[in-house]
Amino acid sequence: MTYVNVNHLKLPGNYLFAEIGKRVAAFKEQNPAADIIRLGIGDVTRPLPMACIEAMHKAVDDMSRVETFKGYPEYEGYDFLINKIIEFDYKKRGINIEIDEVFVSDGAKSDTANIQELFGQNSRIAVTDPVYPVYVDSNVMAGRTGEYSNGKWSNVTYLPCTAENNFIPELPKEKVDLIYLCLPNNPTGTTLTKEQLKVWVDYAAKNKSVILFDSAYEAFITQEEVPHSIYEIEGAKEVAIEFRSYSKTAGFTGTRCAYVVIPKELKVYTSEGEEVGLNRLWYRRQATKFNGVSYIVQRGAEAIYSEEGQKQVKETIAYYLNNASIIKNGLESIGIKVFGGVNAPYIWMRTPNGMDSWEFFDKLLSEANIVGTPGVGFGPSGQGYFRLTAFGNLENTLAAVERFKTRLKI
Amino acid sequence: MTYVNVNHLKLPGNYLFAEIGKRVAAFKEQNPAADIIRLGIGDVTRPLPMACIEAMHKAVDDMSRVETFKGYPEYEGYDFLINKIIEFDYKKRGINIEIDEVFVSDGAKSDTANIQELFGQNSRIAVTDPVYPVYVDSNVMAGRTGEYSNGKWSNVTYLPCTAENNFIPELPKEKVDLIYLCLPNNPTGTTLTKEQLKVWVDYAAKNKSVILFDSAYEAFITQEEVPHSIYEIEGAKEVAIEFRSYSKTAGFTGTRCAYVVIPKELKVYTSEGEEVGLNRLWYRRQATKFNGVSYIVQRGAEAIYSEEGQKQVKETIAYYLNNASIIKNGLESIGIKVFGGVNAPYIWMRTPNGMDSWEFFDKLLSEANIVGTPGVGFGPSGQGYFRLTAFGNLENTLAAVERFKTRLKI
Repeated sequence: MTYVNVNHLKLPGNYLFAEIGKRVAAFKEQNPAADIIRLGIGDVTRPLPMACIEAMHKAVDDMSRVETFKGYPEYEGYDFLINKIIEFDYKKRGINIEIDEVFVSDGAKSDTANIQELFGQNSRIAVTDPVYPVYVDSNVMAGRTGEYSNGKWSNVTYLPCTAENNFIPELPKEKVDLIYLCLPNNPTGTTLTKEQLKVWVDYAAKNKSVILFDSAYEAFITQEEVPHSIYEIEGAKEVAIEFRSYSKTAGFTGTRCAYVVIPKELKVYTSEGEEVGLNRLWYRRQATKFNGVSYIVQRGAEAIYSEEGQKQVKETIAYYLNNASIIKNGLESIGIKVFGGVNAPYIWMRTPNGMDSWEFFDKLLSEANIVGTPGVGFGPSGQGYFRLTAFGNLENTLAAVERFKTRLKI
Repeated sequence: MTYVNVNHLKLPGNYLFAEIGKRVAAFKEQNPAADIIRLGIGDVTRPLPMACIEAMHKAVDDMSRVETFKGYPEYEGYDFLINKIIEFDYKKRGINIEIDEVFVSDGAKSDTANIQELFGQNSRIAVTDPVYPVYVDSNVMAGRTGEYSNGKWSNVTYLPCTAENNFIPELPKEKVDLIYLCLPNNPTGTTLTKEQLKVWVDYAAKNKSVILFDSAYEAFITQEEVPHSIYEIEGAKEVAIEFRSYSKTAGFTGTRCAYVVIPKELKVYTSEGEEVGLNRLWYRRQATKFNGVSYIVQRGAEAIYSEEGQKQVKETIAYYLNNASIIKNGLESIGIKVFGGVNAPYIWMRTPNGMDSWEFFDKLLSEANIVGTPGVGFGPSGQGYFRLTAFGNLENTLAAVERFKTRLKI
């Protein structure tokens, strides 16, 4: 008889977006004429940079001729892309990353979900709260998180990030092994300075922990003092894995390309205390369970680093950041307390009058016909907060702010 | 302190292809003028069908305009592709598969490696021997396979497939839970008739086992009586998952697209004997750890099913099968015992004079300057066999056969 992996049964359903869908559908049925503006889901809407389009047309043509046809890609990605990553994302910031420390993939979601496979079953994980759900869920499926109650897993260390601590996580009281940090943060939009990030690198070095640093929103950083890579911090190559993605940088959510950096200095241990390098372990994992990213897509990603590509990417980021600024300023002008939106495409707002997240969701939908995401969906410390995204188009963003001002009764 | 997943350390290195590479490099250094023909690796060489090229150009253009731009794809694949899969790969063969039973992915390697996550830790796996290494290796990494010695894992049931049993696996003596069947087989090229396959479906039904049916080489089936899908067998929807891939069907090894069918009738059990459907369990797995396949690639895959696409795919398959036939006939004409090559792109040959697989590798390389794959690399029962691939071009294939006839001293 074949048994199920019972850890998979522990995972609560994706109630957040299912519940949002249900409530929106019910509202539309009762109000068929309502013109709903969606500022909920974190998906991009602007087209790909023309440099990527042109590069992918060329790559498609390469696949049509015997002489230029490409079979199986390298598991770790093509050198033409990895060399650009090293030059633009690292060398230009004074960081030395070697070619065999970069692994191209189909998405940061896959990478951040799969990375836990490398670690021991009893590793204790720590996450900021609120948080992107994949970090915890992938560990639930691996059987590391214990029991679920009141929105929390018994074996997970939650690091509350609220307005009270300015969304800066404090070091955990108990020892933890795997520390997931997402900066700029989804959903709060928080960033840390180099000094603040160094506290975490030092903690990891002292405790032989590993930091899993998700910088999927790095392209949205506007402030000079905010580090773009954890490797800007001294000692980080000994303790941190960095995840990057083209999804939000260049509109690749539907094109699918990302990468992860695993420095060769980074080690974990056997129970006998023997060091094991994570870099070759990940290579082995990818070589066994993954067959590389489409040639066409990797050529598209390479073009992001061309002169034209860089210009076009910056224009799109500026478009979204303008939306963010419109939302931020608009909401502040009517007395709503707003966070994020400066180095991130998300606006994290405090719900007015101490409303709970879902209460405000219903109110915003019924009064202003706007869909957002209840903060509590990202974790217990998200209660009383609400996320709005800047990934819509300018017209809808302006209209949404106007509705906040004129239709919402607060 | 962060510990390593010790199961990952158990995995032996990919010694097969590393060793091949090492021996070829050494030979080339000593014989720089040698014109080596490579019939080793199972990668395609013909360009993509023009129907796919045209569809992908159009899809790239879709990504360049706001109106047609695509963000996050559905985790399970776009309906436009799934509907074609259902119509062409199943309905035309009288099989009823529903839209939510098909899951599009980036490759059958990912799918066949990840599927084991759904099953209990103590599931016993059975594999035919020789076999595609991913089935066993993914279970090694999950900690299911026990200890390794003499090319075998203590907790894996090996089903020998040799000339003595006509490469038809016998039912296991002990009860097994997960049965990996690859048909047409890589590396032996074997197929089973419906009656032979029904034996396995009946075994699985009786023992509540799950068959993991990898039909990546389905497009190469030429004989009328060979089933194209395990679902042609009565009762298979209750016991089997089917993996398909466009890699060998349409030259997608570098483009990356595949799919898996998980019927809703298929159940596994909790220790209390409660039934759990694998279909929704896989959806949840994919939704948590995967973010779908590139829109551009899915449009390319869709075009395989167009009238032009079908015609072009058949031409390419015929090209490779002609190579297979040239190798098969050529080798038989000099008295070599040959298998496969009729419903598969692989020729599985018995090494002459009882040579071991590596001995023959060296002989073939030094005398004929041809690289193939030693059969023992696919498992202990591959000892004394050797794999040649039909995925080269016609000229090299003809030249290789000529060298077998004129240069090889047997």
